Amino acid sequence: MNIRNILVVSPMYQDLQTLIQEKKLHYNFRFLPEQDVTNEDFVWADSFVGFNLSTQYDYGQVQWVHSLGAGVDRFLHKKIWPQHVLLTRTICSFGQRIAEYCLSYILKDLQCHDHFKQLQQAQTWQPRAPKLLSQQKVMIYGTGEIGQKTAEVLAGFGVEVYGVSLSGKEKKHFKQVFSFEHHFSKLQEMDFIINTLPLTEKTEQVFNKEIFSHVSHVGFINVGRGASVNEEDLLHALYTNSVKFAVLDVFSEEPLPQNHTLWNHPRVIITPHISAVTTPREAVDCFVETLKRIEDKQPLKNQVDVRRGY
Amino acid sequence: MNIRNILVVSPMYQDLQTLIQEKKLHYNFRFLPEQDVTNEDFVWADSFVGFNLSTQYDYGQVQWVHSLGAGVDRFLHKKIWPQHVLLTRTICSFGQRIAEYCLSYILKDLQCHDHFKQLQQAQTWQPRAPKLLSQQKVMIYGTGEIGQKTAEVLAGFGVEVYGVSLSGKEKKHFKQVFSFEHHFSKLQEMDFIINTLPLTEKTEQVFNKEIFSHVSHVGFINVGRGASVNEEDLLHALYTNSVKFAVLDVFSEEPLPQNHTLWNHPRVIITPHISAVTTPREAVDCFVETLKRIEDKQPLKNQVDVRRGY
Repeated sequence: MNIRNILVVSPMYQDLQTLIQEKKLHYNFRFLPEQDVTNEDFVWADSFVGFNLSTQYDYGQVQWVHSLGAGVDRFLHKKIWPQHVLLTRTICSFGQRIAEYCLSYILKDLQCHDHFKQLQQAQTWQPRAPKLLSQQKVMIYGTGEIGQKTAEVLAGFGVEVYGVSLSGKEKKHFKQVFSFEHHFSKLQEMDFIINTLPLTEKTEQVFNKEIFSHVSHVGFINVGRGASVNEEDLLHALYTNSVKFAVLDVFSEEPLPQNHTLWNHPRVIITPHISAVTTPREAVDCFVETLKRIEDKQPLKNQVDVRRGY
Repeated sequence: MNIRNILVVSPMYQDLQTLIQEKKLHYNFRFLPEQDVTNEDFVWADSFVGFNLSTQYDYGQVQWVHSLGAGVDRFLHKKIWPQHVLLTRTICSFGQRIAEYCLSYILKDLQCHDHFKQLQQAQTWQPRAPKLLSQQKVMIYGTGEIGQKTAEVLAGFGVEVYGVSLSGKEKKHFKQVFSFEHHFSKLQEMDFIINTLPLTEKTEQVFNKEIFSHVSHVGFINVGRGASVNEEDLLHALYTNSVKFAVLDVFSEEPLPQNHTLWNHPRVIITPHISAVTTPREAVDCFVETLKRIEDKQPLKNQVDVRRGY
């Protein structure tokens, strides 16, 4: 591959420009916000770095696309990908970030933060023992980079961590990994379920009444993709208490529309897609590392299998 | 030591009785709530197991006192201890419990739980990046069992953990341990400070304006003893923002009196002394283990140095 002209498109293009220029790389760069991109930029570029493009461009001469996010569904899901183009994605500290996000909400529940807050407001002293992590069972959907890191962090506290993946292949830090077809019977034991799955045709709406009918009083955390959840089924599961509470960082439509039912649900916590943010510095480090590995013809850990979609 | 008659006094005496009887030990036991204890019980007993006694008894023939709590200040602080009596305390999972308690409130802050809750109430989508644990610096006061476990858990996430102890002796999991006299200059770098110190003459009111004048925008967590904090100085430090927020599980007077100023402070979180509860099962396991070690003349990890007070 002959990389010369790199087009970087992002709302944070100025930060990326400053940080990339510090690296003194011998390439031609164009840094642009999406609204200023034209077809001519794609004719000029052989490489493209960005989150996604709302308009469909012909990638032109582009041979390499590097996603600034971990998820690449915006490039692949329900789109046709030109087979000769290399697609890589940002990985970096996403796993750690998502693990800490999930842990924070699990601990909030186990340590009864809301309960003690209510007691404080009522000026009432009424001890209740928090629960230990080592008494919990968690099912993590998706056993890739992010699912594994989350499993590692939780297992470090003695949590019994199970995984669900398309293959059901055993992975480190999981007590057991199930295939989708064979995980249902285990679900009722779980205290928490966490979705880290990428969005593909196979993971669209997988969190539907089938899964929710097998859980009981579970905490549901979604840090994967919103479109993997059937929201109506989730609301019903909250109503019947199969789901005790839901922590949602991702939604089928983002930003979550202003009058959406989820905003007001007393047992739903909404965060604005922040569980795995890319800081400009991390994004640049990962991009530069990937660029170097391509040039040195070294194996890429972050190359996307376009056929699988992640 | 000749152990035959063991007096167990606790609000949870019935649970303790059931669990101890399961062990089929060859000793005579009396299980009582405090209000039913008489002097005669102390004449009968050679060993006493309990949290503390509100009335001062002559320990009589008692040769061994086993505290059902980790803190023994209720036995020793401002009291005279009969030197020939062995004093042991419950340790078990306190370290782990306190570590998870502290971690839950640190993560609540780093993951901006309150901020996102406000945004949700306003139905506003406004991303903000949570902070990673690996970017934090924490000072832990007390480098014993509990302080060390808390340090271990935090250091496992890449937190830079410092310790403060009377001796300043280096301990595992701490990047550096300071003596009280030499730790002040390091304080201003800290994001969080955690008190795990036992209450002794030397640790009474140590969290006073001297410490608070060296911190800046710090989160203060107290899981040690309430009497180690000068509450007026803490309130002033909250007012000047030297202390950003305080999480208090222990108080000079417990239960915290109903009209105490702390209940209503918007940046104070009150929990009713639950960060290290003793579950009946754990209490019994620790008591039986200690009893066995005494009988087998094995070294005791949980013997209290009565002179030091912990």
